[in-house]
Amino acid sequence: MPRAARLPSRQDFPVHQVRRYLEPGPIVLVSSAYRRQRNIMTMGWHCMMEFAPSLLGCVISSGNHSFELIRKSRECVINLPTAALIDQVVGIGNCSGAEGDKFERFGLTALPAQQVGAPLIGECHASFECRLHDGRLVGKYNYFIFEVVKAHVARTPKNPQTLHYKGNGEFMLAGEVVSRRAKFHREYL
Amino acid sequence: MPRAARLPSRQDFPVHQVRRYLEPGPIVLVSSAYRRQRNIMTMGWHCMMEFAPSLLGCVISSGNHSFELIRKSRECVINLPTAALIDQVVGIGNCSGAEGDKFERFGLTALPAQQVGAPLIGECHASFECRLHDGRLVGKYNYFIFEVVKAHVARTPKNPQTLHYKGNGEFMLAGEVVSRRAKFHREYL
Repeated sequence: MPRAARLPSRQDFPVHQVRRYLEPGPIVLVSSAYRRQRNIMTMGWHCMMEFAPSLLGCVISSGNHSFELIRKSRECVINLPTAALIDQVVGIGNCSGAEGDKFERFGLTALPAQQVGAPLIGECHASFECRLHDGRLVGKYNYFIFEVVKAHVARTPKNPQTLHYKGNGEFMLAGEVVSRRAKFHREYL
Repeated sequence: MPRAARLPSRQDFPVHQVRRYLEPGPIVLVSSAYRRQRNIMTMGWHCMMEFAPSLLGCVISSGNHSFELIRKSRECVINLPTAALIDQVVGIGNCSGAEGDKFERFGLTALPAQQVGAPLIGECHASFECRLHDGRLVGKYNYFIFEVVKAHVARTPKNPQTLHYKGNGEFMLAGEVVSRRAKFHREYL
């Protein structure tokens, strides 16, 4: 697959505000590395769990090639793709890391992270570096609780057109953003 | 608040397919009941965890009036509002059940559920009756793992315009739905 568009310019973002990007429920790309292997998988089953520390829970099935890389390294990067990357998202979700390197296969750029060994995906709107915080539900539910330890977010657009998986091969594309800020109690914002 | 539009006609829906509605990450309304009390809260931190049994994890903060109703009854209903209910969603999230009955205050219709004691919200596009499946993370993370035991979904529209909370009083409205079904392996659909 040809290389995607040039890389967005990203900057540091406060980790306790990652809910701005993850709470709406986008499909994400999880990058991981362990020893000489690296991989990318798609993931739609995730959940904010706390602001500070910034905790994110997610299901990574043991059937995925990434499962052992993440379980052993206890790290990953959660990357936020936009609609421009829909074909890469679908392609990544429909092949296995056992078949070859997905960064090369899908023309994606692996950038070094700051806090973890797993690479960032340069083409994504945002990348969240994660360390395993609590693995007690990994055995029973494949459920990992990560702490987001570093966040990188593109300056523009303010509201990226994220992809939201509905099953059955269908994606909802993020639509209009409306504010009801004036109707919120300040402490609930 | 005046009563919302008339109630959508809803029908039984397979519980192992609720990811069609919950995986895209909508804000939901959680209804609960215990003894003579009932309540509604908004909730955005949830995660599909398994198809069969149909498991959904979610964070219900112990600061919410609903927390004790749900912890004690071990049941709730997860209701899916659409954009037409945005003002009710914001209102419900910005007051406490301790101040009075939210069904009355927001003109919402409590309908009897089939499997649980908590009421369905008749105005919502879908309602998912839930029983507590695993409460081991309730103490540490306020994280409940529910089994969806019964699902009710409106016949139309096929793709409801759900609300996706971004924090800061802002909601993303569900946009266009695109299919990439032809590019999926059959077993991944």
